[in-house]
Amino acid sequence: MSLAISDNLMKQLPRILRTSTLAKTRMFRIEQLDLEFANGTVVPYERLRSAGNGAVLVVPMLDPGTVLLIREYAAGVGRYELGLPKGRIEDGEDILEAANREIQEEIGYGATRLQHIRSLSLAPGYIDHCTHVVLAQDLYPERRSGDEPEEIEVVPWRLDDIPSLLARDDANEARSIAALFLVREMLADG
Amino acid sequence: MSLAISDNLMKQLPRILRTSTLAKTRMFRIEQLDLEFANGTVVPYERLRSAGNGAVLVVPMLDPGTVLLIREYAAGVGRYELGLPKGRIEDGEDILEAANREIQEEIGYGATRLQHIRSLSLAPGYIDHCTHVVLAQDLYPERRSGDEPEEIEVVPWRLDDIPSLLARDDANEARSIAALFLVREMLADG
Repeated sequence: MSLAISDNLMKQLPRILRTSTLAKTRMFRIEQLDLEFANGTVVPYERLRSAGNGAVLVVPMLDPGTVLLIREYAAGVGRYELGLPKGRIEDGEDILEAANREIQEEIGYGATRLQHIRSLSLAPGYIDHCTHVVLAQDLYPERRSGDEPEEIEVVPWRLDDIPSLLARDDANEARSIAALFLVREMLADG
Repeated sequence: MSLAISDNLMKQLPRILRTSTLAKTRMFRIEQLDLEFANGTVVPYERLRSAGNGAVLVVPMLDPGTVLLIREYAAGVGRYELGLPKGRIEDGEDILEAANREIQEEIGYGATRLQHIRSLSLAPGYIDHCTHVVLAQDLYPERRSGDEPEEIEVVPWRLDDIPSLLARDDANEARSIAALFLVREMLADG
């Protein structure tokens, strides 16, 4: 029923015949690559390369049953969205340092206990971006100023009430939804 | 504890002062926009505009306890990934038609019962992309040829065994993980 983890090593990766940069801006680089699959098929692909060191998405637990969400403007979709705090990993930071800085900037808390629980891809077919999910517990009030253009609204939410979050029209981010389920499952298992 | 759904209507959206296209390729368009927030702060943003009509991610249930996953090469991250069938909505298709076509191409089944259960955003801060999650039930064998460069491996998985899927190193996509939890929750509720 399930594959061994080592199966991926046995599958022959396509050969990269050629790569080139099609466009580059401050935030994005678009790359073209020609791939030759094991069966000889050659296909041109475009993919998005992220600048920087990846990102963190933090699940900050105010107490064992309450997660702190934020409501901020999301320029990609042009509306306010409710989700978990997140941000880019800066040069010289590791994953947990970035997570602790982001929650201090976005929700006004630091965490004594930080744990990297999983990494998530966005759209692995055409984006190389990687987001590290960090569980933050034992919070303490600590505010750092970040680069947010306006004050961020912090919204406490019961972790056992994900269904009513999903019933809203402004909580749509796949990464936040996946991370909330992952943490609920993890904390329920003890 | 929880906000009313109408709250989002009351929050004043930033004003778009200017937009311009920084780069355009076959698959992507990168846009620059200057936003003025309610407090007067003006910030330049870059965002990725997708071409086309959005995408579908399908949760095909072979029987009430078994979901069909696929293992295919993901050019964005450069490795084989295990996740749900997905693809772009073609011109003239609606969401359910696209979902039924994608599973015929990728897993060799059509579905008599298709239900759009939710839409997900990828990275709402800087990508406008929208993925529609479709639950597909009552499958029947039906193969259509698609644009896949090589045969796709189909991997049946027990819906009650998400933990062992998450323990693998090749099942990382946030959308697939979110959709599996959503469907498990939905089917458990009856």
